[in-house]
Amino acid sequence: MLIRSFNPPVRTLMGPGPSDVHLRVLEALSRPTIGHLDPAFIQMMDELKELLQYAFQTENALTMPVSAPGSAGMETCFVNLVEPGDKVIVCQNGVFGGRMKENVERYGGIPVMVEDAWGEAIDTGKLDETLKTHADARIVAMVHAETSTGAQSDVQALVKLAHVHDCLTIVDTVTSLGGTPIKVDEWEIDAIYSGSQKCLSCTPGLSPVSFNERALEKVRNRQSKVQSWFMDLNLVMGYWGEGAKRAYHHTAPVNALYALHEALLILREEGLDSAWDRHHYNHLALKAGLEAMGLTFIVKEADRLPQLNAVSIPAGVDDAAVRSRLLNEYNLEIGAGLGALAGKVWRIGLMGHSSRAENVLLCISALESVLGEMGADIKLGVALPAMQKVLESN
Amino acid sequence: MLIRSFNPPVRTLMGPGPSDVHLRVLEALSRPTIGHLDPAFIQMMDELKELLQYAFQTENALTMPVSAPGSAGMETCFVNLVEPGDKVIVCQNGVFGGRMKENVERYGGIPVMVEDAWGEAIDTGKLDETLKTHADARIVAMVHAETSTGAQSDVQALVKLAHVHDCLTIVDTVTSLGGTPIKVDEWEIDAIYSGSQKCLSCTPGLSPVSFNERALEKVRNRQSKVQSWFMDLNLVMGYWGEGAKRAYHHTAPVNALYALHEALLILREEGLDSAWDRHHYNHLALKAGLEAMGLTFIVKEADRLPQLNAVSIPAGVDDAAVRSRLLNEYNLEIGAGLGALAGKVWRIGLMGHSSRAENVLLCISALESVLGEMGADIKLGVALPAMQKVLESN
Repeated sequence: MLIRSFNPPVRTLMGPGPSDVHLRVLEALSRPTIGHLDPAFIQMMDELKELLQYAFQTENALTMPVSAPGSAGMETCFVNLVEPGDKVIVCQNGVFGGRMKENVERYGGIPVMVEDAWGEAIDTGKLDETLKTHADARIVAMVHAETSTGAQSDVQALVKLAHVHDCLTIVDTVTSLGGTPIKVDEWEIDAIYSGSQKCLSCTPGLSPVSFNERALEKVRNRQSKVQSWFMDLNLVMGYWGEGAKRAYHHTAPVNALYALHEALLILREEGLDSAWDRHHYNHLALKAGLEAMGLTFIVKEADRLPQLNAVSIPAGVDDAAVRSRLLNEYNLEIGAGLGALAGKVWRIGLMGHSSRAENVLLCISALESVLGEMGADIKLGVALPAMQKVLESN
Repeated sequence: MLIRSFNPPVRTLMGPGPSDVHLRVLEALSRPTIGHLDPAFIQMMDELKELLQYAFQTENALTMPVSAPGSAGMETCFVNLVEPGDKVIVCQNGVFGGRMKENVERYGGIPVMVEDAWGEAIDTGKLDETLKTHADARIVAMVHAETSTGAQSDVQALVKLAHVHDCLTIVDTVTSLGGTPIKVDEWEIDAIYSGSQKCLSCTPGLSPVSFNERALEKVRNRQSKVQSWFMDLNLVMGYWGEGAKRAYHHTAPVNALYALHEALLILREEGLDSAWDRHHYNHLALKAGLEAMGLTFIVKEADRLPQLNAVSIPAGVDDAAVRSRLLNEYNLEIGAGLGALAGKVWRIGLMGHSSRAENVLLCISALESVLGEMGADIKLGVALPAMQKVLESN
């Protein structure tokens, strides 16, 4: 096979992640590699921790990026906190709750499922009932922002309930961090993980996590060894922990961490409140355009994530053909449905640096153009004025 | 804390990895991010597999980079191949054999250790004896190139022995891939892992692995689920496997994979034989300089790795002070000792793009300068001519 240097096409990324990466982040990524024990690198790590603490709104000493994608961040939370025989209540309302169940089982825990329909928020009443029925549960796990559906759950209320029953909490914020409010300390979340490639708009491959003292206490006092060497926080803390000697555990992904540092710096420069507002307003503009065309959201208004917009594919429309045309004709990526929703919905991301007015306009006009040409049953010529009205009022 | 964009110093990396990254690789890293399911990306993945097959000298269909550092590559091999109760013979002659033992235990296996002194190659006779004593062993694990000592073992002979006793083999080639011969198919290695940041001179964070059919057979027919969701090859193969639908498993570290593609392309352009020769000749030059100064290797000549040179720290010399001066005055990183060898040796890497004549000269002259000023008991003024003689004969 003749192989040349790879020059990717330039896309606009409006799927469920990765999102558009800011040029500042790409530039940081390509700075000279230095050693993972270099004093200059260690100082960068300290800054990175502080920037992550800001993003998570926490003072947790153990706040760091796992050297692997979000699924490894999930695994870091579960493999450290679940001991064989532990009963773990898993709230499931989409694909990622199912992945949590897989995690619990693989580490010898006993999952108890609280199931809500895909597209709905997690029902606090159901969790309360389950906690009462399973008084011996040790952990409650939940997804804040379901990437498969675009539904947001009331993590603050769910965590409060879990604590009444003396359970630790694990919260998935892969799609929410930086895009919609998360307050780790105020909401008393015990263990949390996220991803670099969604609303932080860094390149994919890192998973920020944060553990409070209560969660760490459990990790330190486990009866059995953590069922992973790579993810064992008792070992990782020797490199990343507060006051740690920065002892070698594994070789940190040096350049990826430069990029995350830069992405988090951009977030701090903008400010969390402004970033959350921006995600909200651009979502309203996109929503106006989608609904004017006649497309419908699968999540009810109160529970919608601004950064992930799942809409039903109009009847008779060829899902894959539309996405291919958007990609080939406009270099625009939107997301397909996942799991039970495959073929039924599109997921339109407005995450991080992708959440810009120009992306909203491109997406709606490209969709209108392609769907119109394919003869789909949508309203033409009304989306643009509807969006403009919203954008002007922002 | 006032935090600005991070601008790392420009170092020459002659420790145990990361090694100097070629500008072509850094530039590839910073190309525009695209989706992990983008058709253009899928094509790049196919090329990447072919380039990795070349580097490993294999036609194994399951040849891919794990989306995390070398320790996760190790874990991918062990967590997929070790089932609870499996007896695993682990050959240990340094730090990384010890890490293998930890892996076996954490997945419920029973490790049987074959121990050799640190700095020595693995003794085939001892392995043979152990295989005879433990006829129920299922797997033999070994480190080809011990990064903690610089010793190289005869993997071909060890694998052959293991197969006589019907054991699968797991081989760590983190430090050897690209620097010294490895022939996966010819040597009949069953499962192998490496790292991106050593002799491939890519940025750290990825771990190439390859499994042959015999190893995959065991993964497919496990009695119990793999004790990791993130690393379960039965799932990962849906994205990376031959003829796979490239179904979403986790979000691939897109830009890091661009970089690995470029690093492997550079290796293929040079050719494996030439790369191995280059590592060998530059090692001879470094060796001439080090020995002329009076420094001594801890590994006997026949077992030395060209890419990792461990020498004893001269008596009375302050280890940390020397390394700090090299870093601060010459922007030169060399490696400290690891584990039992901490404070006793320096590890000088000549890996991948770091294996260049100019680096050999810089390292020897900087070491001579610093050690000379500190009054160490070394011979001055003789290293440079000794090296030149070797470099001219290459």
